[in-house]
Amino acid sequence: MNEDNARFCLLAGLILLYLLCGAAIFSALEHPFELRARRLWKQQLDNFTQRYRVNLGALHTLLRQYEEANGAGIRVDVLRPRWDFSGAFYFVGTVVSTIGFGMTTPATIAGKIFLIFYGLIGCAATILFFNLFLERIITMLAYIMRWCHERRLRCAGVGVVSSREESSGEEDSLEGWKPSVYYVMLILGVASVVIACSASTLYSPMENWSYVDSLYFCFVAFSTIGFGDLVSSQRQQYESQEAYRLGNCIFILMGVCCIYSLFNVISIIIKQTLTWIVGKLVCSGRHQSCSCCRPGCRQKRLKRNTVQPISSHCPAGRHRYMDGSVETVCDSETDAGAVADGVYVGRRLSGEMISVNEFMVSNKVSLALLQKQLSETAHQGPRQSYSHQNGFSGGVGALAIMNNRLQETSVDRLHK
Amino acid sequence: MNEDNARFCLLAGLILLYLLCGAAIFSALEHPFELRARRLWKQQLDNFTQRYRVNLGALHTLLRQYEEANGAGIRVDVLRPRWDFSGAFYFVGTVVSTIGFGMTTPATIAGKIFLIFYGLIGCAATILFFNLFLERIITMLAYIMRWCHERRLRCAGVGVVSSREESSGEEDSLEGWKPSVYYVMLILGVASVVIACSASTLYSPMENWSYVDSLYFCFVAFSTIGFGDLVSSQRQQYESQEAYRLGNCIFILMGVCCIYSLFNVISIIIKQTLTWIVGKLVCSGRHQSCSCCRPGCRQKRLKRNTVQPISSHCPAGRHRYMDGSVETVCDSETDAGAVADGVYVGRRLSGEMISVNEFMVSNKVSLALLQKQLSETAHQGPRQSYSHQNGFSGGVGALAIMNNRLQETSVDRLHK
Repeated sequence: MNEDNARFCLLAGLILLYLLCGAAIFSALEHPFELRARRLWKQQLDNFTQRYRVNLGALHTLLRQYEEANGAGIRVDVLRPRWDFSGAFYFVGTVVSTIGFGMTTPATIAGKIFLIFYGLIGCAATILFFNLFLERIITMLAYIMRWCHERRLRCAGVGVVSSREESSGEEDSLEGWKPSVYYVMLILGVASVVIACSASTLYSPMENWSYVDSLYFCFVAFSTIGFGDLVSSQRQQYESQEAYRLGNCIFILMGVCCIYSLFNVISIIIKQTLTWIVGKLVCSGRHQSCSCCRPGCRQKRLKRNTVQPISSHCPAGRHRYMDGSVETVCDSETDAGAVADGVYVGRRLSGEMISVNEFMVSNKVSLALLQKQLSETAHQGPRQSYSHQNGFSGGVGALAIMNNRLQETSVDRLHK
Repeated sequence: MNEDNARFCLLAGLILLYLLCGAAIFSALEHPFELRARRLWKQQLDNFTQRYRVNLGALHTLLRQYEEANGAGIRVDVLRPRWDFSGAFYFVGTVVSTIGFGMTTPATIAGKIFLIFYGLIGCAATILFFNLFLERIITMLAYIMRWCHERRLRCAGVGVVSSREESSGEEDSLEGWKPSVYYVMLILGVASVVIACSASTLYSPMENWSYVDSLYFCFVAFSTIGFGDLVSSQRQQYESQEAYRLGNCIFILMGVCCIYSLFNVISIIIKQTLTWIVGKLVCSGRHQSCSCCRPGCRQKRLKRNTVQPISSHCPAGRHRYMDGSVETVCDSETDAGAVADGVYVGRRLSGEMISVNEFMVSNKVSLALLQKQLSETAHQGPRQSYSHQNGFSGGVGALAIMNNRLQETSVDRLHK
């Protein structure tokens, strides 16, 4: 089993664990309310049947009919029409964005069949739209953060720059500069919170929801979960209705784009953590097999690095491991990897292990410093391996976009 | 405005148009049914009030109470408990996958606030899971298709191989071989249909849904739209309940992964089409500005290619354009681009223009042939520009994964 597969299985296992924990917590939080609601409804039904001497069976039939009518979007308190043009537009918006509130659903067979084909193209186009949006926003953030970084360097003076250049070897301190993923997450997180709070300030008075309910609706809508227990812009009349509908659309669009980007950035960090865990397992596993000097161990390494590794690196790694420094073990592996012509797994592990390790050990380390360290770690190797490393560890979804995009930005600058 | 921005705006415009058309069609399909349902419900309500002499206001109050009870998951025909452990597990599954049926929703404030933080991490982890799954499935498909391709070449004999080598220049016909995106789409499409049909065969008798309804449910669930008008495994009792619940989970997991991959592959094709359209617009726009020989035109080109372009390529391109061959114009630009050290936009446009053009002009061209042509077009340039081109045009979401992954597969093979 290679490391990509190991990471995939580890992630699946962790998600399962996360689901089990979540189920237990939600069950504890919500189960008492469910029982109370059930008792309340039974009492209300009893009251009604006793007072009006209605046959319970007939009432049940009516309630079933009401459920069916609900499915067609009919409520006691009249809602906006479901399938006039503006209602249908809201509906298709929830389809292509995969929000799927379900306040409106096709009831005819023709509508259902059409939905399948319509959704297939629409969802694919919207995924592309979100990805292109992510690309645009990361490019923009990279430019802005780069500008800030340059300005900071200039303010700090030439002396500092030269000492940094010294520490990062022959590389210019701005060459290959990339904004930290933590910074990008912070910015997107703040943007999401700002959008959600602004939207809630709009929804709260317009829909008569509490502020917490509005925030909850914003999260459920923006993350494209879309339960449909709360749906905005459903009543028949609002004050300044057209403006509200437009504002609703814009808020949902902005929110979905922003949260989609945020999810992808968080998923990078999760991936780094996974790579670090897998790397640690591989490291310790290899360390053990190295110390007992089985031939299988070396053979496995041979296959991974594709050329003859330096014969002394295993004991050296072990020796350094005895000193208690995990990074150093991996650095020794990195040296072997740098000599090899194959896939720079060692180097990749090294860079990401240092990053996560540092991040977890001390929160005192500023993000800027961390980014600097990461950047320097990456720059220690030859340029070729650096870009390969990015292409490789950057091979996942938005991560790829970001690494590619950020790198491109630097390359563009160099050529200007 | 550069081409990336142009493509983004073009996509946004096309999606808006798609939404407007969809809204019109759905409105036409569903509006009559809505009116009928409204009339039917009014009639049912009238019948009930007349027959049992119930005050309409009191009945409305009861129905409002029923709506509230509905929100807590209570129905006349008793459903499975919402918030026991298995119900809560189903719920968190719909949260992290962003399906969000809404058959179960948190009702307490604590539950709602917890959901926001729980969903934030859970959705990010699941996006990563889907992306890693996509990576795995593409790797697998690439290996299988490569194996088939090699076998086909071997069966066809050495003579054919050598003639193909001749046609693709100095490159080995397997070096840099990548499976066609159309093939991958076809395979994923077939897999999705098979999963949806198998799942429908299970759901249809278990839930008493028609087969079309089951297919519709499968699409809505697998695409993570999740309206919630039809939700599987909601009744209190089923035959062999545990097996059905497990099967339901597995089908939804497989379906979601498969459709997610399919969406991403379709989004690649949409992106290629967009790039082709933008390229065509740029080509014709440039042709016009070249023919009037303004200095601004050349300056713009300078910036894009980053080195002095060949001074004669503009008239040459125009000349070739007069011959009526769009591809040739872009080939002449490609020549300029190949000389330049910058971003190989010309080459990228060329490859994708030919691909989409060929695909649209004739459906008779087999996909294999098309792939061959695409591959050959890409191989005409130097290796370096080829990989850069992939990194660039592959800068979007799953597209990047696929291009990276497929290329890696080839590289791995070469090094073995």
